[in-house]
Amino acid sequence: MKKVSIPKGTRDYSPAAMARRRYIFDTVEEIFRMFGYQPIETPAMESLDTLLGKYGEEGDKLLFKILNSGNFLDGIESAQISKKDPSGLSAKICEKGLRYDLTVPFARYVVQHRNEISFPFKRYQIQPVWRADRPQKGRYREFYQCDVDIIGSRSLLNELELIEIVDLVFDRLGIGITVKINNRKILAGIAEILGERKRLTDITTAIDKLDKIGADGVNRELSEKGVPEAAIQRLQPIIYLSGRPKEKLDTLAKVLSGSEAGIEGVGEMVRLFDYLESREMKAEIELDLTLARGLNYYTGAIIEVLAREVNIGSICGGGRYDDLTGIFGMENVSGVGVSFGADRIYDVLDHLDLYPEEVTTGTRLMFVNFGHAEEKYILGILPEFRDAGIASEIYHDSVKLKKQMIYANQKGIPFVALVGENELKGKVLTLRDMESGEQKEMSVEEAIDLILSGYVE
Amino acid sequence: MKKVSIPKGTRDYSPAAMARRRYIFDTVEEIFRMFGYQPIETPAMESLDTLLGKYGEEGDKLLFKILNSGNFLDGIESAQISKKDPSGLSAKICEKGLRYDLTVPFARYVVQHRNEISFPFKRYQIQPVWRADRPQKGRYREFYQCDVDIIGSRSLLNELELIEIVDLVFDRLGIGITVKINNRKILAGIAEILGERKRLTDITTAIDKLDKIGADGVNRELSEKGVPEAAIQRLQPIIYLSGRPKEKLDTLAKVLSGSEAGIEGVGEMVRLFDYLESREMKAEIELDLTLARGLNYYTGAIIEVLAREVNIGSICGGGRYDDLTGIFGMENVSGVGVSFGADRIYDVLDHLDLYPEEVTTGTRLMFVNFGHAEEKYILGILPEFRDAGIASEIYHDSVKLKKQMIYANQKGIPFVALVGENELKGKVLTLRDMESGEQKEMSVEEAIDLILSGYVE
Repeated sequence: MKKVSIPKGTRDYSPAAMARRRYIFDTVEEIFRMFGYQPIETPAMESLDTLLGKYGEEGDKLLFKILNSGNFLDGIESAQISKKDPSGLSAKICEKGLRYDLTVPFARYVVQHRNEISFPFKRYQIQPVWRADRPQKGRYREFYQCDVDIIGSRSLLNELELIEIVDLVFDRLGIGITVKINNRKILAGIAEILGERKRLTDITTAIDKLDKIGADGVNRELSEKGVPEAAIQRLQPIIYLSGRPKEKLDTLAKVLSGSEAGIEGVGEMVRLFDYLESREMKAEIELDLTLARGLNYYTGAIIEVLAREVNIGSICGGGRYDDLTGIFGMENVSGVGVSFGADRIYDVLDHLDLYPEEVTTGTRLMFVNFGHAEEKYILGILPEFRDAGIASEIYHDSVKLKKQMIYANQKGIPFVALVGENELKGKVLTLRDMESGEQKEMSVEEAIDLILSGYVE
Repeated sequence: MKKVSIPKGTRDYSPAAMARRRYIFDTVEEIFRMFGYQPIETPAMESLDTLLGKYGEEGDKLLFKILNSGNFLDGIESAQISKKDPSGLSAKICEKGLRYDLTVPFARYVVQHRNEISFPFKRYQIQPVWRADRPQKGRYREFYQCDVDIIGSRSLLNELELIEIVDLVFDRLGIGITVKINNRKILAGIAEILGERKRLTDITTAIDKLDKIGADGVNRELSEKGVPEAAIQRLQPIIYLSGRPKEKLDTLAKVLSGSEAGIEGVGEMVRLFDYLESREMKAEIELDLTLARGLNYYTGAIIEVLAREVNIGSICGGGRYDDLTGIFGMENVSGVGVSFGADRIYDVLDHLDLYPEEVTTGTRLMFVNFGHAEEKYILGILPEFRDAGIASEIYHDSVKLKKQMIYANQKGIPFVALVGENELKGKVLTLRDMESGEQKEMSVEEAIDLILSGYVE
C-alpha cells in the first residue's frame, strides 16, 4: 500500500476529536450569542495586499502564498525569473495568501462592508488560520481561532463584557482561570517617564518575557536593544510593583503623573476594576504590569488568560485597538476583542479530563441484521426511533452476529436491538444494554422510553 | 479610503447569510447523525501527490497550489527556472495544494487511518473546497461541500439509506425534489452491447448532456469522439426508453442479456427499486438512463437530485464507487456517498422564501443606556435574561436615545428595555415591543415570560 500523509503541521480530525471540538465551539458560541454577538466568515484566501505588512517582517515570511493560476509566468520578463531574488519573484507569481489570523480579515471586512454594518458591531468568527511556522508540540500550521470583537465603541463596558464572557466560557467548561490585565497606555507612560518613548515596543517585548527569561534576561535584552542603563534601573521598581489592583494603580498614578498617556491608562484601569468589582466572577483577576502582548496594534487594555491548573501558556487573550481599520484607511474606529485558543483549550480539557461523557457518543441504537424479512420490518420502525431523537442504524449486511456486535462495540453504541423470527411475529424487539449485558423483549415504545432514560432495567 | 477587496470568486458571509447557512448545515447534520453518521474534518492543504491525477487533466489545472515556504528556489538548477516550462517549475516550487473536493481527502483519510476505523465507516464532512475555475453566477472559487458516505459495505441498503436521507433533508427544508437514479453498470452494459466498451466515458459524458444539448447534440458529440454511426443508431431507443422503473428495467434486462455488467446493474436496480417502493417518501424517484454524472470513480448506482420548482441544476448527487481508496493502494473497499450543494440549496431556499423567520434573529433584548447608575443595575439583571436563553445586551455608550434606538432597529432587535430613574427606584423596567410600539412597565420575571412568549400584550 502506498504511504499516504498530510502536510506537516496539519491534522485530520476523527469523529471523537470532532465531538470534543464541537463541544468547545458550541459552548463559546452559545455564550457569544447570549451577549448579542453575531457570526461572520471570511474567505480562506485574501489578497496579499491585504495581508502583507500587517504582522511584521517575521509574519510576512510565515504567510502561505498561493501560486497564480494559469500560466503564472506570463507577462514576467525572463530576467526577473532568477534564483537570486525569490521574494521578488514570489511577489510576481502570487497574488493571494492564506488567512494568517482573523483580526486583519475582520478589519478588511469592516472597511469593505461599512455601509451595511450598524455600529457598534459585535461579531464573532470561528475559522482556521494558516502559518508556515516550524511545527512542534502544540504548534500547528493549520489551527482554529475563535475571535470575539466589538468595534465602533470606546466604552469600557466593552472590556468588562469581554471579561465576563471569558469568565462564563471557562466556568461553563470547568476550567479555573486567572485573567491578567494591563493597559498599553500605562506601558507607554512608563516608557515616556523613562525618556524612552520611541522604544515602547522594545520595552514591552522585553517586559513580556519576564516569566520566561527572568528579570536578568529582561534587563539584558533591554540593554542589547540600546535602552540606557539608567532607564533600565528606573524600570525595576515598576516591574516588581505589588499589592491589590487598586493599590498598584494608586502608586502608578503618582509615578506616571508626568505622562498624559500614563494618566489616561491608569484612569481606564481604575474604572475597569471598579466595574469588575461590582460583578460576581469565578476567575481570579489581576493587574499585571509585566503583561505586554506581542501584537503592535493594541492601544489600551490588554488581557491574557491562564489556566490555573495546567501550565500551557495563554489560552485566551486580546485587547483594545484604536487603529485597526486605519491600516485600510478607515480612521477612528476603536475596537476591543479577545481570541480563544481552541487547541490549547482542547488540551487543557483533555488533561483535566473535563469532557462530559455524552460528548463522545454517536449512534445510540443499532439493529442487528438477520436477513431480508427482518430488514424490511426494521426499516419500517427505524423512523420512530429517529423521530424521538435517538440516532439509530441497522447493520447493512446480514453477516455473522459476532461481526455485527464487534462493530457496535467499536463504535461505542450503547444499545443493540435484535429482531429475529420470534420478535418479527410478535412485533417486538429484544433490547440489549451493551454495558450491563442485560437484555429484554419489549415493544418499540418501551424501547424508546428505555433508551431515552439511558439504561435497561 | 483605500479600496479593499477579496479575491474574485470568494465571498464574505454576513451574520444574516451565516444564520441561513447554519440553518441548512444544522438540518443536514441533524439528519446525518440520526442515521449514525459521524463527522470528520481534513486539512485545507493536501500534498499535491494526493491531489494530482485524481480529477482529470482539467481538474489538475484548477487546483490552487501553495508556494513552498522559505527560499522556494533553493536547490533548483537555474536552467530549470525558465519561462518555457511553467508546469515543470510549479511542480518544483509547490508541494501542497488546496482541497478540491471532499472525496479524495476522505479516501486518503480512510487509507491513512484504516487501523483506527471500524468498517463500515459512516462519515459526513462539511468543509469548504477551492477551485481555480472562472468565477460566474453561482460558481465560486471557494464553496462548501457537504458529503455523506458509507464505506466498507456493498449492501444496497446503503443506497436506500442515502436516498432516505436525501428525502428527509429536502422534506425538512421544504424543497420538493426529483431524485434521478441510474447505474454505471447499466451504462457499461450498453457500451458493451454496442461494442464500444472502452469508450464508456465518452458515451456517458455525451449522454449526460442530453438535457443541455439535446439528442442531436449528443449524437454529434458521439460521432466526433469516433463512435461508429451504427453504434450511435443502436443507442437511440435506449436513451428514449419510457415507462415506470420496473418496466424500463424489464426491457433493459432483455436488451442487456448479453452483458455481464449490464445484467448485474439491472439486478441492483431491481432490488433498489424494490426497497424504495416499500418506503414512504416525499420525493419523486425516477430511473433515468441518461443520467451519467461526470466523475470517473462511480461504478454502481448514481443519483442526482433536482428541485422541482427551481431550475438551477443538480442540488445534490453521488453514487457508488468500488475503487476510491484503490488510488492510494487500498483495494476492495466499496463505498457510496452523496454530496449536498450548499450554495445551490441556499439559493433555492432564498428563491422560494423558505427560511423560517427565527433563523435571522440575533439579539432579542436591548437595554437602553441612560448612564452610570442605571448601567450598574442593568449589568446585574442581564444574566437573568441570558440564563433564560434570551440573547440580551446593553447599549455600551450612554448616547442620545435616538441613536440607541436606531441601532436596535438596524440590528432587528424585537424588544427594547428602558430603565430610567423611576424604574431604578421600583426595580422594574419598561419593555417596548419594537414591532407593535406597545410598551409597559413590569418586573424582570414578567419581562422574561413576555419575551419568551414573543410579544407585549
